Amino acid sequence: MDDRLIFNIQYKMDEFSFIEKYLAQLTFGNKEALFLKDDAAIFSPQAGYDFVITKDALVEGTHFFKNDDPYLLAKKLLRVNISDLAAKGATPYCCFLALILPKNTSEEWLKGFASGLRDDLSEFGCFLAGGDTTSHEGALALSLTIIGLVPSGKAILRSGAKNGDSVYVTGTIGDSYLGLVSASVNSTNASTSTTSRYYLPQPRPNIGKLLSDIASACIDVSDGLLADLSHICECSEVGAEISINKVPFSEDVTNSIKTDSEFAIKAITGGDDYELLFTAPAGIEEKIAEISNQASAPITKIGVIKIGSAVVVLDKHGNEIVIDKLGYKHPIGNKND
Amino acid sequence: MDDRLIFNIQYKMDEFSFIEKYLAQLTFGNKEALFLKDDAAIFSPQAGYDFVITKDALVEGTHFFKNDDPYLLAKKLLRVNISDLAAKGATPYCCFLALILPKNTSEEWLKGFASGLRDDLSEFGCFLAGGDTTSHEGALALSLTIIGLVPSGKAILRSGAKNGDSVYVTGTIGDSYLGLVSASVNSTNASTSTTSRYYLPQPRPNIGKLLSDIASACIDVSDGLLADLSHICECSEVGAEISINKVPFSEDVTNSIKTDSEFAIKAITGGDDYELLFTAPAGIEEKIAEISNQASAPITKIGVIKIGSAVVVLDKHGNEIVIDKLGYKHPIGNKND
Repeated sequence: MDDRLIFNIQYKMDEFSFIEKYLAQLTFGNKEALFLKDDAAIFSPQAGYDFVITKDALVEGTHFFKNDDPYLLAKKLLRVNISDLAAKGATPYCCFLALILPKNTSEEWLKGFASGLRDDLSEFGCFLAGGDTTSHEGALALSLTIIGLVPSGKAILRSGAKNGDSVYVTGTIGDSYLGLVSASVNSTNASTSTTSRYYLPQPRPNIGKLLSDIASACIDVSDGLLADLSHICECSEVGAEISINKVPFSEDVTNSIKTDSEFAIKAITGGDDYELLFTAPAGIEEKIAEISNQASAPITKIGVIKIGSAVVVLDKHGNEIVIDKLGYKHPIGNKND
Repeated sequence: MDDRLIFNIQYKMDEFSFIEKYLAQLTFGNKEALFLKDDAAIFSPQAGYDFVITKDALVEGTHFFKNDDPYLLAKKLLRVNISDLAAKGATPYCCFLALILPKNTSEEWLKGFASGLRDDLSEFGCFLAGGDTTSHEGALALSLTIIGLVPSGKAILRSGAKNGDSVYVTGTIGDSYLGLVSASVNSTNASTSTTSRYYLPQPRPNIGKLLSDIASACIDVSDGLLADLSHICECSEVGAEISINKVPFSEDVTNSIKTDSEFAIKAITGGDDYELLFTAPAGIEEKIAEISNQASAPITKIGVIKIGSAVVVLDKHGNEIVIDKLGYKHPIGNKND
């Protein structure tokens, strides 16, 4: 329905002109998208593969600032969804975009957004297969549904962690939270590496793909390392114990911890890291090291899965740190929710 | 990401409580949905079937009134998407919901919404497989992605209409537009059959399924009969000629035409009918009549496909009616966009 709305923008562009001018090229000629002219996409199943489907929304004021660069915003929208696929071991295939625009959206904004989407679809080997665009009196809201492919039966679930498994995480943790803090202080300063991490997450589909044969459970770190570990534990009906001094921190985050000893806790509860947190049976450290080399990304063992349901964080002396929030119950409106 | 947000609602329900209390049951136990706990759904392809995927958003102030009944709104959201599937000849399979809530959403509202969704998922043989829920300072916005199944290669496209094909439409046209006009005059009056049509469309998946072997092109009437016919013509690179006195109108709409001779034009440009408009080769009137009987719904021949690109409406004398809008370029903010 409603796919003939006029956008109340410069040049009075209507939805069809917008689709034709900016979105149609994002199909990269894939015929499943029916040139974005048919309000639907049609896929024949690929023998030997399962589909993995996930959907994430980003809303102005909750997930991003009003004046954030549309080019980066489009990339972030795609990347947070690709990160969800990566955690399943799935490779991005195609996506569907719901674009809910404020009425006074400029053509320049649309152009920037489409351009960011094009560059990242191309980078991650994905294409736009359909969606819906509308405008309203309110703020910008974006919803993306993404479809990935995984060899049949090989999707990694959150529910497979077992007592004795090791807990690993890719990359470094806390940079995005630090970037958010910097961006909140000065929203025009997106030049440091940590603010870049906040504005432009680096999902790990290549590592996810390699993990599908060996990880027992996997999740991407979006709510915060600790919260996401607790999601794995809940789904797997196990507990976990991690050592905070084993969590991989960047130099920037390490410096922040030096000036604020609480910052390590903030880093593991802050969220938006889009690294992969996974569990794997003990004794396959060599395989993990191979994957780390192959993907040119650090993979660090930070703890172990235990029986029970408690998720415990140990300090450098091996004592439990009591943390009453797992980084996921901030009131709505906090930028980091 | 962001799937641990607290909703700032009565009882301080967080997203997980909401999912567990209201949404989890909407999976009807389908294991592909991973109990809505895994941020993704995983599907094995079904031999002999293609997937059809479509996505439609509904936004407060543009597509519905602020105080519309959440129970009916949930049904409408699902039904407009099912209508898109019906036009492809596809049977609903499962769906993904993005729920962007105002901060002060009451639990009563959530309950009503979930209840409407449950009843219609059940009615149309569909289930909830995943999604994302968030809240923000702004108005309510809903986006649904739906997946349907169609026998391999049997999806009906908009692009198959051929010169000489007949043009058919199911049900009656204009009731929803009349209902919208009534609802706009008195938003509490949703009791008449036309306002019911506006609030609760009746998609035609059963007819769509039966058409997949015989229709050359099909679309659901959402933008307006004339606009949607023009979509078929554009995609098929043909023209069309329909007679306004052959368009099936209900008694209510016929009465409105008696008091306002322009109302017939409004009815075919008004939109939101969610009937199927399709083309089929000449000479298969009997088969169409069989389908009509089988589905207990009228199917009316209203015109013919022609060479060229013009979409022409004839009056009862066979003269062309000049219509400068095809019902799809109303400025945003009109309730019927």
